[in-house]
Amino acid sequence: MTVTKPSTDLDIAKKADMKPITAIAAKANIPEEALEPYGRFKAKLDPSKIPGASTGKVVLVTAISPTPAGEGKSTVTVGLADALRQLNQSVMVALREPSLGPVMGVKGGATGGGYAQVLPMEDINLHFTGDLHAITTANNALAAIIDNHIHQGNALSIDPRRILWKRVMDLNDRALRKVVVGLGGPVQGVPREDGFDITVASEIMAIFCLATSLADLKARLANIVIGYTYDREPVFVRQLEAEGALTLLLKEAFKPNLVQTIEGTPAIIHGGPFANIAHGCNSIIATQTARKLADIVVTEAGFGADLGAEKFMHIKARQGQLKPEAVVIVATIRALKMHGGVPKDKLASENVNALKDGIQNLAKHVDTIRTFGIEPIVALNRFITDTEEELTALLDWAKNEDIRIARTNVWEEGGKGGIELAKQVLEVLEKPNYFHPLYELGQSVEEKVTAIVKHVYGADGVHFTDSAQKQIAQIKKLGWAVLPICMAKTQYSLSDQPTLLGRPEGFTITVREVIPKLGAGFLVCLTGDIMTMPGLPKQPAALRMDVDEEGNAVGLF
Amino acid sequence: MTVTKPSTDLDIAKKADMKPITAIAAKANIPEEALEPYGRFKAKLDPSKIPGASTGKVVLVTAISPTPAGEGKSTVTVGLADALRQLNQSVMVALREPSLGPVMGVKGGATGGGYAQVLPMEDINLHFTGDLHAITTANNALAAIIDNHIHQGNALSIDPRRILWKRVMDLNDRALRKVVVGLGGPVQGVPREDGFDITVASEIMAIFCLATSLADLKARLANIVIGYTYDREPVFVRQLEAEGALTLLLKEAFKPNLVQTIEGTPAIIHGGPFANIAHGCNSIIATQTARKLADIVVTEAGFGADLGAEKFMHIKARQGQLKPEAVVIVATIRALKMHGGVPKDKLASENVNALKDGIQNLAKHVDTIRTFGIEPIVALNRFITDTEEELTALLDWAKNEDIRIARTNVWEEGGKGGIELAKQVLEVLEKPNYFHPLYELGQSVEEKVTAIVKHVYGADGVHFTDSAQKQIAQIKKLGWAVLPICMAKTQYSLSDQPTLLGRPEGFTITVREVIPKLGAGFLVCLTGDIMTMPGLPKQPAALRMDVDEEGNAVGLF
Repeated sequence: MTVTKPSTDLDIAKKADMKPITAIAAKANIPEEALEPYGRFKAKLDPSKIPGASTGKVVLVTAISPTPAGEGKSTVTVGLADALRQLNQSVMVALREPSLGPVMGVKGGATGGGYAQVLPMEDINLHFTGDLHAITTANNALAAIIDNHIHQGNALSIDPRRILWKRVMDLNDRALRKVVVGLGGPVQGVPREDGFDITVASEIMAIFCLATSLADLKARLANIVIGYTYDREPVFVRQLEAEGALTLLLKEAFKPNLVQTIEGTPAIIHGGPFANIAHGCNSIIATQTARKLADIVVTEAGFGADLGAEKFMHIKARQGQLKPEAVVIVATIRALKMHGGVPKDKLASENVNALKDGIQNLAKHVDTIRTFGIEPIVALNRFITDTEEELTALLDWAKNEDIRIARTNVWEEGGKGGIELAKQVLEVLEKPNYFHPLYELGQSVEEKVTAIVKHVYGADGVHFTDSAQKQIAQIKKLGWAVLPICMAKTQYSLSDQPTLLGRPEGFTITVREVIPKLGAGFLVCLTGDIMTMPGLPKQPAALRMDVDEEGNAVGLF
Repeated sequence: MTVTKPSTDLDIAKKADMKPITAIAAKANIPEEALEPYGRFKAKLDPSKIPGASTGKVVLVTAISPTPAGEGKSTVTVGLADALRQLNQSVMVALREPSLGPVMGVKGGATGGGYAQVLPMEDINLHFTGDLHAITTANNALAAIIDNHIHQGNALSIDPRRILWKRVMDLNDRALRKVVVGLGGPVQGVPREDGFDITVASEIMAIFCLATSLADLKARLANIVIGYTYDREPVFVRQLEAEGALTLLLKEAFKPNLVQTIEGTPAIIHGGPFANIAHGCNSIIATQTARKLADIVVTEAGFGADLGAEKFMHIKARQGQLKPEAVVIVATIRALKMHGGVPKDKLASENVNALKDGIQNLAKHVDTIRTFGIEPIVALNRFITDTEEELTALLDWAKNEDIRIARTNVWEEGGKGGIELAKQVLEVLEKPNYFHPLYELGQSVEEKVTAIVKHVYGADGVHFTDSAQKQIAQIKKLGWAVLPICMAKTQYSLSDQPTLLGRPEGFTITVREVIPKLGAGFLVCLTGDIMTMPGLPKQPAALRMDVDEEGNAVGLF
């Protein structure tokens, strides 16, 4: 991302001296019987065999609204954990696992970068321990069971026009967004409109990340609404009697995965919903397992604080009975300049005025976190192109606004580059915590959505389309209005318009669809033209990938 | 399958005392650096780190034409290996890995049964080490790249009506057989007819099983023909520059998997094409790795000798430069009675006349193996319902025809129940081997297919539809006629009509399509109404599956 990078993330990762996963586990006091190695450097953990209570403190890393300039949120998350370890803290990282869609589509990993990476990055970014494949398979097994049920007599009177359950693939494949299935005559099934989402948008991914035990996982799977009957009654997975098979397909995947950072800090990577179209946090079982093993757990939530962090506070924290004890907001001067209107090819030049405009995006996210009752720490992720004048402008702003800020340089320096941030985090962890949600579950759907769009996005209000209003009426009638909200919104803007950067004002949010996810336990509100199946770019990253003669990855970031 | 079974295969498997996979590997002289554990009881092997030449002798286990009564081919394969080990032979098993399609669809595993199983059967029958998921992903990544290429300007002028490459899922899902993709307007891709096959029918599965090295894998992937241009010129994967990414997605999966039989014999399980719609043999890399490690490798080929064994002889043996040194044909009295016309619910009653009629199916398979220059051994897999008169009839027939026959009872007794068979196998391995194929590659497509249908199926000849003739003409023009043939035919009959049991005569085979698979290196001939995507039955096996409170599988066979 900058001219001084000595080599690629993949090069640095390959040169790293990884310790056997058994050694990492031993140092983390993981009992041998809880460890199931997957190769030499990955393992699955059986949480039922790890004693103790989940008492570790949660540090949540979030960010400004992302730009193509990149903020390095995963990189800071890893670097912060390594820094805390250098300060002799008992610490673990908890991250999401990457989807193959973006890996094959757009260059850019989900394992951090430089000297702040989780390893083995090659494996983690490819199939890892197969969790996403298990979720894909469970999702599609359910789809096959639904279509088979209709084909074999349709005893439940499922209306093929009102099926909510879509098939998934862990790839970017726009041609599958809208399809017609069941063609070819009476022996090939019943023709109907259908579509594929990317696996990370599957309700099963959300369930996987919110379930607190295998029994809870099964209960949630049974509770999925797959569609409606001809009489508009909801049809649940339990009526199809498929929850046992789905749980069986997921039971090994449901065990969290242990890996290590480049500095040997233990890291748990498990579950990976996107934060724009899903709730954007790693699994509760991973976070709670890490909290048994370490005093501090550094975790991240996807995209800006308006998306992943909001959902962390309202969905994950609630369902997991946990709370963030400190929040870090990652920002870069480059990305703030983009929010101030500078085009991508001009980011290397100093532009203090644009920076000051762009800072308003950061200011909004700081306000949001404060609204949740937490005093955030801004992590200024340094780049070689940052000038002294720009730095001064940002630091002065923070001082005037009484905002904690710390410079980080973890890409180049690893944990050492995160010491200033780590010290501030430790200070905040010593202070009292006033965390509270911005809405209560008993409020109406409209009130809950309004609370999010006003206090988190800074909108004037929300508009529900006719179709969304009808869906809300149905949701109320069925008694589901008590669920929390999972907004699906562009990550690029605080609004639902991807091009409105900075801190937009005087806008409203349009909710075009409200989809009940009874298994996950939330109501998805679709805004703007957010898509649940991405497409590939003209030159997919895949076309630069290869394997060398020794069997090593080439061109993977 | 019989009344005396003390418990289910899953119960027996759960009670088995598995050894750590590191111990199994050590006993098999696998160097530590070649072993990558996946959990405690599975491992991947790096063939490049296993020294030595592939000199072990190959024993191929095949069967009569299968019936719903079951013959127990995998069970005999495992039991035979355990018996050879009891006779102090250096032996390994090489098997295919199961597809989730049949596992979730129809009760019946692919890991043997009773006291002749490979373990851990639960893992092997579910996601195992993720190989099939890697193949699914590579297959579908290529599909996404093709549709994206067309959407982004179609520089290669690919005709969307002439795309051969289909998407896949490792599930039985009839609703996906014929679909229309790319619907929804200009930003959602280009609409076209498409379809999904089951993963085991993917050309990538065939390539995976026929490649002799990672470099060969990549070269074969580059050589896949994905369809034709508007000018009817073939389009290869190498023109899309996707072979590097596909190889990267497959490189870990391409390492063979080590497990153990219930008696602790090392078993390699790797690759799993069906034998009716694909070539039906485990990977060449698995067989060749096993041949480095053991003096005798017991392997199987899918369905009857007309399918898997024929393809073993003509495709796998050729491409892997290996040969079967002994062939076992598994038969049961129950299944032979079905071939003699007895309905499934009458199989428990003695019926010597029906048996004598049904023996003709076995007789044909014996003839076929002899035609290949090998003296087969019939393994009579015993059932409690077999009567003395039936046994005598079968043994007398074998004696009269001068056919080697051995009784096996491995389901109940493990290796001990296969000693008689093992001794006969050892005798045959001492004798000279006259193995030869039934056609040469230089013959015409029509001559090669004719050789198979006459000498293996016992047909009078072959009829090519107009469409097949056009395809053959195109194949000749393009210089591909030199490839071997991979027949796609029903497994139930020697003919292309599933209901013609026994040893049908006076029939012809109709080839309705000839599809070039340049990467796999064969021409697929579709006969009858054989389908490359199965459907689920009215009551899928999945609906009986569950997980108990300790996280153990329930209802998995």
